[in-house]
Amino acid sequence: MTGVWHCQGVSRTAAVPVGAARQGSLRELNLALVLGRIADADRPPSRADLAARTGLTRATVSAVVEDLLLGRLVAEVEPAPRAGAGRPARGLVLAGDGPAGLGLEVNVDYLAVCVVDLAGRVRHHTVERADLRPVPPAEALGRLAALAAAARADAADQGLTPAGAALAVPGLVDDAGLVRLAPNLGWRDVPVPALLARHPALTEHVDGVPPLVVDNEANLAALGELHAGPSGAASFLHISGEVGIGAGIVLDGRLFRGVRGWSGEIGHVPVRPDGRPCRCGGRGCLERYAGQEAVLAAAGLAGADLPADTAAYRLAELARAGDAATLAALHDAGTALGVAVAGVVNLLDLDTVVLGGGYAPLEPWLRPPVLAEISHRVLTAAWSPVTVRPATLGTQAAAVGAAGSVVRRILARPGGWLAHRS
Amino acid sequence: MTGVWHCQGVSRTAAVPVGAARQGSLRELNLALVLGRIADADRPPSRADLAARTGLTRATVSAVVEDLLLGRLVAEVEPAPRAGAGRPARGLVLAGDGPAGLGLEVNVDYLAVCVVDLAGRVRHHTVERADLRPVPPAEALGRLAALAAAARADAADQGLTPAGAALAVPGLVDDAGLVRLAPNLGWRDVPVPALLARHPALTEHVDGVPPLVVDNEANLAALGELHAGPSGAASFLHISGEVGIGAGIVLDGRLFRGVRGWSGEIGHVPVRPDGRPCRCGGRGCLERYAGQEAVLAAAGLAGADLPADTAAYRLAELARAGDAATLAALHDAGTALGVAVAGVVNLLDLDTVVLGGGYAPLEPWLRPPVLAEISHRVLTAAWSPVTVRPATLGTQAAAVGAAGSVVRRILARPGGWLAHRS
Repeated sequence: MTGVWHCQGVSRTAAVPVGAARQGSLRELNLALVLGRIADADRPPSRADLAARTGLTRATVSAVVEDLLLGRLVAEVEPAPRAGAGRPARGLVLAGDGPAGLGLEVNVDYLAVCVVDLAGRVRHHTVERADLRPVPPAEALGRLAALAAAARADAADQGLTPAGAALAVPGLVDDAGLVRLAPNLGWRDVPVPALLARHPALTEHVDGVPPLVVDNEANLAALGELHAGPSGAASFLHISGEVGIGAGIVLDGRLFRGVRGWSGEIGHVPVRPDGRPCRCGGRGCLERYAGQEAVLAAAGLAGADLPADTAAYRLAELARAGDAATLAALHDAGTALGVAVAGVVNLLDLDTVVLGGGYAPLEPWLRPPVLAEISHRVLTAAWSPVTVRPATLGTQAAAVGAAGSVVRRILARPGGWLAHRS
Repeated sequence: MTGVWHCQGVSRTAAVPVGAARQGSLRELNLALVLGRIADADRPPSRADLAARTGLTRATVSAVVEDLLLGRLVAEVEPAPRAGAGRPARGLVLAGDGPAGLGLEVNVDYLAVCVVDLAGRVRHHTVERADLRPVPPAEALGRLAALAAAARADAADQGLTPAGAALAVPGLVDDAGLVRLAPNLGWRDVPVPALLARHPALTEHVDGVPPLVVDNEANLAALGELHAGPSGAASFLHISGEVGIGAGIVLDGRLFRGVRGWSGEIGHVPVRPDGRPCRCGGRGCLERYAGQEAVLAAAGLAGADLPADTAAYRLAELARAGDAATLAALHDAGTALGVAVAGVVNLLDLDTVVLGGGYAPLEPWLRPPVLAEISHRVLTAAWSPVTVRPATLGTQAAAVGAAGSVVRRILARPGGWLAHRS
């Protein structure tokens, strides 16, 4: 089955996969409940543990686990040996050879594809570096499809079944999957769903699992960080520093998408209202002071034409070597970033800021000026410190977050996948 | 009963009034359900309408309505005459002579007290103008208590019982009711609950109704607007323009308080990072360009020492008369405000901005520059317009919002009030 599920924005969480006829039934609820407890557990739980944690009877748990085992959603592992009488029960873990999520990304200077298994492990990851600004969208998606086909083949070799996909783009995506504007890529009103129809490697999915979702890369990167990062930080601002700068706002463990799904455009927060003109038509946007091109130019690397993550690592190398121009460029970028972040913290009262994307490797140099601006400018900073830390995933975050979003949809509604299997 | 309920922040919605022993019971749920349907109805519903809208039986609705009538939470009204056979049933409305909310406000240059009945009507409203910056907090609260005693007497004359109170302060309030910082008032670490204990007129409340809540004035003003303003706008940014500038962020009909309850400090969003020093210790904060003092100074009224809402009306009068200095001052203030608002809209994707407090009477002059900045600076502005409108309540909003918050707590948990009555 090939299709595009271009649901976007607030309504997404309420959307229901069409093929999952039995979702919502008691069986589906029990499947999701038991699967969720297995996913959340610190150690592989036994059937008895699951009965205690779900409130279901032992018999019901056993029947549900049998379905999950048959459907390759979970697997059994041998318990650790222990002292005392009796043979310990076997534990259950998420399967490493069942369904998987395919994560896709088109960015300004690279294409990325990855496969993430149910347990959240990245099992395949390819990045193709290329300046995509002169490339027509249909051709960019064609190149992505070639990478996706290779990723699917690799996943199959590992016994995995990519059951659905999500695509990250550095722009504003509307309810119909239309990319309204991706200023740094030069895309405007690009009908991604129509273009995808030509590329089954991008959209192929299992009946009962929602087809491809198109979403903003900063949103998906924040979701990637939410699930890959330290547990407990359920509210944070995740900033993806690439050629453009996007943010994902996570509140109480959920992505805040805004009224129309277009939140997080921190790159266009004005930090110098009468300052440098921006591609967006505004002036003095954060991107013009802390975006990759501005930093490279300030560091004297304007013509170097380095791809995004290479650029970040090159800057980090120069900074480590004590290059004065690079250190000054990073200080100025961090100060501009800090001005914007201080505004966000004053407004939203977040206590954690995650430097992601190309900012992750530059965190040692960006963090001090960001913290300095926060401490000068945030009203509550004196008694309520803000944590600034690097992202766990860095430049991989959007593609991994995309794949992870597919995995989480399967875990939340396992019935569709199981119906497909039976 | 006298007491202070200084719950603040995210936890407030989960807090439960101690006296309402029966809350959560089926009876309490039915009381709240029927009362809510009466409150939300466009026209006074009959008992039959209520049965249809709640799914309860006619007998249950009749019993519940009887309790609500006896408890003076609702009243019966004669139906409008209608054509056709049969005598039309009598309709039910929220009572105008039952419990009421007492709303209190301490601001930089005024004290305010109001009483709001169950139907949301303002039944008493007093404003005492005074520069409160040199006044010690205990004395300011003492003056407020005198106004509150007079308000209670007036309410009693109208047959109303102020059942609980809420206090708005222009600062950051922590979980213990401590005002951590109110920069424009000069308050720092003021233990409001301890000071209130001396003033029963402020804290007196009915058993079963939560005692006094202390909250940020911009938050309460946004709540006031949410309930008094046009229905349908469930997500908006409400900006209270006084000596300080605060914002309340309403998302899907709920106030967003931030991780620690300190959201909305838009007055300290930097609009000129290297600009004028601010009382908060930062530089170039919005308040220094669009706060009341900055606007008065730019309009040549620096020494006029006008109280907040008088200042706004005086500026409006001068602007209407075409005074060039005032028009330029308002244009510059609106531009600074627009820079900050554009950042917020880029970040949160809100589609409605409400100019409240002292900004409400100045909206005709502030709106055009705010919209101009939005249209230049917001990435989605071209295809997704942002509405900028004046607040319905203006400078009354915080006190009315405070009183309204008490009323809504009674409506959500009517059992406490009814138990007190029986």
